[in-house]
Amino acid sequence: MKFNFKIIGSLLGILLVINGGFMLLCIPVSMVYQEGGTLPLIISAGISVSIGSLLWAVSRNRTDNNLNKRDGYLIVTLGWLSMSLVGTLPFLVSGAIPNFTNAFFETLSGFTTTGASILDDIESIPKGILFWRSLTQWMGGMGIIVLAVAILPILGIGGMQLFVAEAPGLKPDKLQPRITATARRLWIIYVGLTGLEFVLLWIGGMTVFDALNHSLTTMATGGFSTKQLSVAYYDSPYIQYVIIFFMFLAGTNFTLTYFGFKGNFKKVWANEEFRVYSIGTLSLGILVCIGLYYNGESNIEQSFRDALFQVVSVITTTGFVSADYTLWGPAMSVFFFMLMFLGASAGSTSGGVKIVRHLLLIKNGVLELKRQIHPTAIIPVRLNNKAVSQEITFNVLAFIMIYLTIYVVSTIIMGLIGVDFVTALGSVATSLGNIGPGFGTVGPVHNFAHIPSIGKWFLSFLMLLGRLELFTVLILITPYFWRRS
Amino acid sequence: MKFNFKIIGSLLGILLVINGGFMLLCIPVSMVYQEGGTLPLIISAGISVSIGSLLWAVSRNRTDNNLNKRDGYLIVTLGWLSMSLVGTLPFLVSGAIPNFTNAFFETLSGFTTTGASILDDIESIPKGILFWRSLTQWMGGMGIIVLAVAILPILGIGGMQLFVAEAPGLKPDKLQPRITATARRLWIIYVGLTGLEFVLLWIGGMTVFDALNHSLTTMATGGFSTKQLSVAYYDSPYIQYVIIFFMFLAGTNFTLTYFGFKGNFKKVWANEEFRVYSIGTLSLGILVCIGLYYNGESNIEQSFRDALFQVVSVITTTGFVSADYTLWGPAMSVFFFMLMFLGASAGSTSGGVKIVRHLLLIKNGVLELKRQIHPTAIIPVRLNNKAVSQEITFNVLAFIMIYLTIYVVSTIIMGLIGVDFVTALGSVATSLGNIGPGFGTVGPVHNFAHIPSIGKWFLSFLMLLGRLELFTVLILITPYFWRRS
Repeated sequence: MKFNFKIIGSLLGILLVINGGFMLLCIPVSMVYQEGGTLPLIISAGISVSIGSLLWAVSRNRTDNNLNKRDGYLIVTLGWLSMSLVGTLPFLVSGAIPNFTNAFFETLSGFTTTGASILDDIESIPKGILFWRSLTQWMGGMGIIVLAVAILPILGIGGMQLFVAEAPGLKPDKLQPRITATARRLWIIYVGLTGLEFVLLWIGGMTVFDALNHSLTTMATGGFSTKQLSVAYYDSPYIQYVIIFFMFLAGTNFTLTYFGFKGNFKKVWANEEFRVYSIGTLSLGILVCIGLYYNGESNIEQSFRDALFQVVSVITTTGFVSADYTLWGPAMSVFFFMLMFLGASAGSTSGGVKIVRHLLLIKNGVLELKRQIHPTAIIPVRLNNKAVSQEITFNVLAFIMIYLTIYVVSTIIMGLIGVDFVTALGSVATSLGNIGPGFGTVGPVHNFAHIPSIGKWFLSFLMLLGRLELFTVLILITPYFWRRS
Repeated sequence: MKFNFKIIGSLLGILLVINGGFMLLCIPVSMVYQEGGTLPLIISAGISVSIGSLLWAVSRNRTDNNLNKRDGYLIVTLGWLSMSLVGTLPFLVSGAIPNFTNAFFETLSGFTTTGASILDDIESIPKGILFWRSLTQWMGGMGIIVLAVAILPILGIGGMQLFVAEAPGLKPDKLQPRITATARRLWIIYVGLTGLEFVLLWIGGMTVFDALNHSLTTMATGGFSTKQLSVAYYDSPYIQYVIIFFMFLAGTNFTLTYFGFKGNFKKVWANEEFRVYSIGTLSLGILVCIGLYYNGESNIEQSFRDALFQVVSVITTTGFVSADYTLWGPAMSVFFFMLMFLGASAGSTSGGVKIVRHLLLIKNGVLELKRQIHPTAIIPVRLNNKAVSQEITFNVLAFIMIYLTIYVVSTIIMGLIGVDFVTALGSVATSLGNIGPGFGTVGPVHNFAHIPSIGKWFLSFLMLLGRLELFTVLILITPYFWRRS
């Protein structure tokens, strides 16, 4: 099997042209607000489109129209990387973020929909550049949908084939037609929900600019805000509930949302992951609310809203902040730290481990005790009333173990880089899980500016690793991948 | 399948009689030092022997000589619990630990070879009672050897069948003859090494009493010391190196030590877990030593000794302290926190996850990436040059996942009980891993006295759970266990 570098090159070229196209979208915004950044955006768009066209032109002489699995792995990782590299241009050229390390951290944090930021005075950045920052997350979210619903199931990554609501008879050797069809359908929902949220936020009193940016970064479960205080800036309960609702939707399997739109609620509720996700999120919100009540918080409505907002924000890996949960006492800190390892639904734009994997894990753990009593019986895990093959269960267990191993090793590395214990624990959890804010000196009201450069590069790597479901990136560094078979 | 309550009762009776016998051993010690406690020890021994004999007498009318697997599970958990309950008597009756919760915590911490203590002035406790405290660990260690080498492999717990160096053709329905034979052989090594360490420590300048106690608790990887400062009390490099060496031996698979004594070093070195354990421990020690050097520590010998001592103490889950690693900076804190999840060899007296499980986990993780590339190939994990069955690999993965799940949930519970973030993280890790000292307010130079009562009971439960390799205890709370099949 040989790599099909021509197709890989031409696809990357197309991605960079699209990248440039989105940069062009920022130019009218920049011109309306006149805070500078228009020329830098034009230059950036020009460079991105030029590089993209060049790459495409060089590679376009295709001999074979089909991608194979290995090409898929390469494209996914290289795609995210090249978008993030070129995506730094508006920040660098405008001088909004003059340092390359910082610009790359911010851009990759965007494209991976993480939302960790090095900015300490967001309101001072020109609006055209801020809009580009929000767009990186929105584009990242679009990429994730394609990845989760079409590419990863075919590559067989981390049991993702299990999580596609309709399991189609996919042929691993022909990716493209399927990808475009599935992606287009779900993108319509993605765009539609973004538009709906925009209108609702605007009605609620947000400026057009803020409403647009927050709806872009909500649907991507990104969490970049145009305010240094994040959503805490808006003390309107309406706005906060709207954002809670859309964060929840963004963390829902988009295929299920599609069925929901078609009125097929039975199919939605039949999905075990969705049931656990919705009931679980609400229960945890109520639990935290009770905790706040015992902490002496007397306003029940606000406690509930603060609790639910923070729970939904962390579970969906959005990372918006409407209150600083690190001030809620030790039990809450532990609780929110642990929440960072949950993740919402597979097939959504959320990052992290994902609920369905935990579900499989817990079911398998309980069944292992049963297997202990009946060693000769074959007892498979069941999900949505179907037996899950041992290969997939194995793959999911391996995924979680690799996730935790990477977490552990990375935390030690961050410690060695010189950040304190709690910050190390928090920064790695939030980067790998694509959440945004962490703990300690990178907590909800802080930012990542003070992390040493080497630490920023390392956390960037973790964001990419987490976003691409580990295997997609890790596989590139195994000898098996490069060996000709 | 019915429970064989008669045999269960008579075995528990025998255990309590043995318990009383060991209490009697403390009486001469108490009489020599004349610090009180002799009468309480006599009373305690009397009660223990009486209850034991009574239980034995009531249950002795056996109808069937064989134990089945379910009886095995019950006996193991009930055995540890009843020993720990009755084992509180010397503390309670003498008034050394007047509070029952504290006494139970201390005793269970002993029998589980954890070494977490509620004592804040160890030197004030009568020597006879301190000797009993050390003996609980030594007896716990004996119990673990039987458990690891004979009982758990037969019960098929957590892949333990894999870790027995000679895999005998065991019949799951007839436990007793095999247990006695294997256990006796390994106990001779256990007793012999304890004696040898005693002599070496005594030569090194420890008092007879201290040498005896420290050798008892080293071989059990227990970590109870007769000094409030633990081994840091002794500034003799010789004493510290001797203890390092014996902690290392106590963390080695006792079956391998047996082969070593018979001169079969090839067989010892052929064992993958032992190679990783020995090379890994030394490497980590050197790594920490280098870290200390960069922290500005100038005395290389002492840095190396401090580093190696603490690394070996945590990996083997002994919990002796010769220096406070929580003062070594953030990276070291993270590092030692992570070390708590390692554990030493299976088939040793050490607790925690154990190296062989991590080995299987890592190997399987790497192979999963290979499986990703070659989805049709069947690629088993290999250990000691033998393919490991998928059932066992599954079982080991499930074990680690359950371990971590319990860790996460328990940390939240400790947070809810009201201890701070770092103490919650540390106290659960150290209890579940049977280590001893934790982090925060239960760090190496602190104790567990200030933890709320409910927290002490909860941590006690975790010690038992960890010590009995999770499944043995957890299985008792599943319906599968109690259902007649």
